Amino acid sequence: MYDFTLNIPTRIVFSSGNREELYRNVLSYGEKILLVYGGKSIKSMGLYDEIIRELSGTGAELFELGGVAANPRHTKVDEGAELCRKHGIDVILAIGGGSVIDCAKAVSVTVGSGAGCWDIITKKTVPSSAVPVITVLTIAGTGTEMNNSCVITNEALKIKRGYSNNLMYPKISFLDPTLTFSVPAFQTACGCADMLSHILDTAYFMPGDRMELLRSVMEAMSRTIIKYAPIAVADPSNYEARANLMWASSLALNGILKNGIRQPAVCHIIEHELSAYYDITHGLGMAVILPRWMRYVLDSDTAGIFAGFGRSVFGICDSDDITCAEKTVDALGRFLYTDLALPSKLSVLGISDSDFGQMGENVCWGGKVGGLKPLVPEDIVNILRLCY
Amino acid sequence: MYDFTLNIPTRIVFSSGNREELYRNVLSYGEKILLVYGGKSIKSMGLYDEIIRELSGTGAELFELGGVAANPRHTKVDEGAELCRKHGIDVILAIGGGSVIDCAKAVSVTVGSGAGCWDIITKKTVPSSAVPVITVLTIAGTGTEMNNSCVITNEALKIKRGYSNNLMYPKISFLDPTLTFSVPAFQTACGCADMLSHILDTAYFMPGDRMELLRSVMEAMSRTIIKYAPIAVADPSNYEARANLMWASSLALNGILKNGIRQPAVCHIIEHELSAYYDITHGLGMAVILPRWMRYVLDSDTAGIFAGFGRSVFGICDSDDITCAEKTVDALGRFLYTDLALPSKLSVLGISDSDFGQMGENVCWGGKVGGLKPLVPEDIVNILRLCY
Repeated sequence: MYDFTLNIPTRIVFSSGNREELYRNVLSYGEKILLVYGGKSIKSMGLYDEIIRELSGTGAELFELGGVAANPRHTKVDEGAELCRKHGIDVILAIGGGSVIDCAKAVSVTVGSGAGCWDIITKKTVPSSAVPVITVLTIAGTGTEMNNSCVITNEALKIKRGYSNNLMYPKISFLDPTLTFSVPAFQTACGCADMLSHILDTAYFMPGDRMELLRSVMEAMSRTIIKYAPIAVADPSNYEARANLMWASSLALNGILKNGIRQPAVCHIIEHELSAYYDITHGLGMAVILPRWMRYVLDSDTAGIFAGFGRSVFGICDSDDITCAEKTVDALGRFLYTDLALPSKLSVLGISDSDFGQMGENVCWGGKVGGLKPLVPEDIVNILRLCY
Repeated sequence: MYDFTLNIPTRIVFSSGNREELYRNVLSYGEKILLVYGGKSIKSMGLYDEIIRELSGTGAELFELGGVAANPRHTKVDEGAELCRKHGIDVILAIGGGSVIDCAKAVSVTVGSGAGCWDIITKKTVPSSAVPVITVLTIAGTGTEMNNSCVITNEALKIKRGYSNNLMYPKISFLDPTLTFSVPAFQTACGCADMLSHILDTAYFMPGDRMELLRSVMEAMSRTIIKYAPIAVADPSNYEARANLMWASSLALNGILKNGIRQPAVCHIIEHELSAYYDITHGLGMAVILPRWMRYVLDSDTAGIFAGFGRSVFGICDSDDITCAEKTVDALGRFLYTDLALPSKLSVLGISDSDFGQMGENVCWGGKVGGLKPLVPEDIVNILRLCY
């Protein structure tokens, strides 16, 4: 059985430069607008000035939550929610990558909840309303532009936690591949590792039945990401590469591939520990962990699923599943560490191995964590050591 | 450039037998329910009795528009709209295949329009409201369960016309593959030809740029349809086959693959002429036309796109595009006429060639019809003769 439910209310406008439609849509929700953004990049590409000028010219009142960092903090969300309450914000316009959009989505449900962000993320408070969010994506990778989730970090507690709520679907997301031309090679590579990891860690490398239709679609998407990622890294203004990667990022985590899987995405949970402790880029963490997790759980039970991916995506021909699965891990590593030139070891990222024990406990919540192969804390430590 | 917009508000519940959720959702829209259905099949499988019993037991008032035939007529739609007005219907529950759901969607926008159905289909009247529609799909093929379109026939005028309006997205569609176990081999085959034709005629075999991501996903979906269609025909209770085909049918025409293409789907327009004049099953008409249209437009300009499909989906290896494209047409014909055992000629379907001239004029509206290769009325007649 393949039971699932799916409902994606977000409207996608995929277009190079159709900014008129953006402004019209933002203003249709009201005139008090909170801009949420990160730092320099939207200013250096002129997007910030353009949006401020065009929206201000209509008489709209603009407020700003700038400086949203990677791994957005709950304190930043609370700051945004307070701005919304104080000024009676009608609509939130998030301009940036996954962190900016995640922050904006968390703000949207915190505003009317009567609680702080962390109470919502930890489910102590259940929000019943949200300020509408419109996004302009400037880095492809997380897929947050078309789903109901965000990931927020509590720096003091060293906890990074995912949260989902249907109220958080963006109303509209504007996907303009040309806005990603200026994303540096490293961030481009991290985004590509992230979208590939969404396909693999949340859907493809999972136990149980899966529709062949979706397995086949995931392989097609993976091949496209693996083809275009190095092109975007080497030739950042390649429209075809940027467009394919941008739409792949949205489709990889909007629920269409999920097929009702309820198992935890283990590599994501391990990575959340790393970035909660060390504030590394999520896609980079995924790139380091995923092949090592594959190597660690590879046995006669799991070889078939890895081998199937390798045969379809990397064209590996070995008929023996174990051999084919091992070559698949190698091929994925070559893609990430050679083709995309991502660092392959935690030790070069300034990460100490001293917290691995605690991270293992956190991942397993004192018991086992599910997924393709159930793991105990000691397994998590072993996987982290393979990454070191 | 690959500009497109996408918004699919329909909620999908893909499940074997989760009828409680169906009843709860229907009743959430009100207690006056119009059941729309076809004929015997939902009665013989017990679904009709079950739904009547369960909904009546809640105190809901049920009204019925039964006997919706293939190629649903505008007169049937008007009959349903009158029932809705007379009884103040809160929600329409469509139980059936594409014709039943198309009829229900057309009813939904006719009710409050102050006009007849044909005025809406021909865009003389623009509806501004719709009665909510919930669907239970019992035949996979048309994809109407997850899109904003319907196709309605005016029998008197011998016109079959498509119509799209965002008001017509079903609120919820229940996809239960086990409900298609009793679909006969011929109807199963027609549905599979229909879903494959949606991929090819509305998106893949189109001129202009296309994201490789989507081309690759369409090839993956086509391979799955071609694999599972003969299995469903031979073994009607094969859950895996029925589930893959059901979800493929929805994804094939919900807009995700469309990539902003605005060209007409030529084979569909030709088929609408055939079924307007001769009331044949749409999927069968598509099966007869598609390979002949391919053969007719095959030249050095179009060979590449056909060859690309053949290499990826049928594993044809010829390096020469023309040879490979010809073999692709052959392979598609073998799939439709041998593997699925569909009739391959219009002449055996009781169709006369006497109206081909008029059909050619109708398809081209007095000029040319676009698509992969622009065609004039004489071309349409030539294609129909190849089908004869």
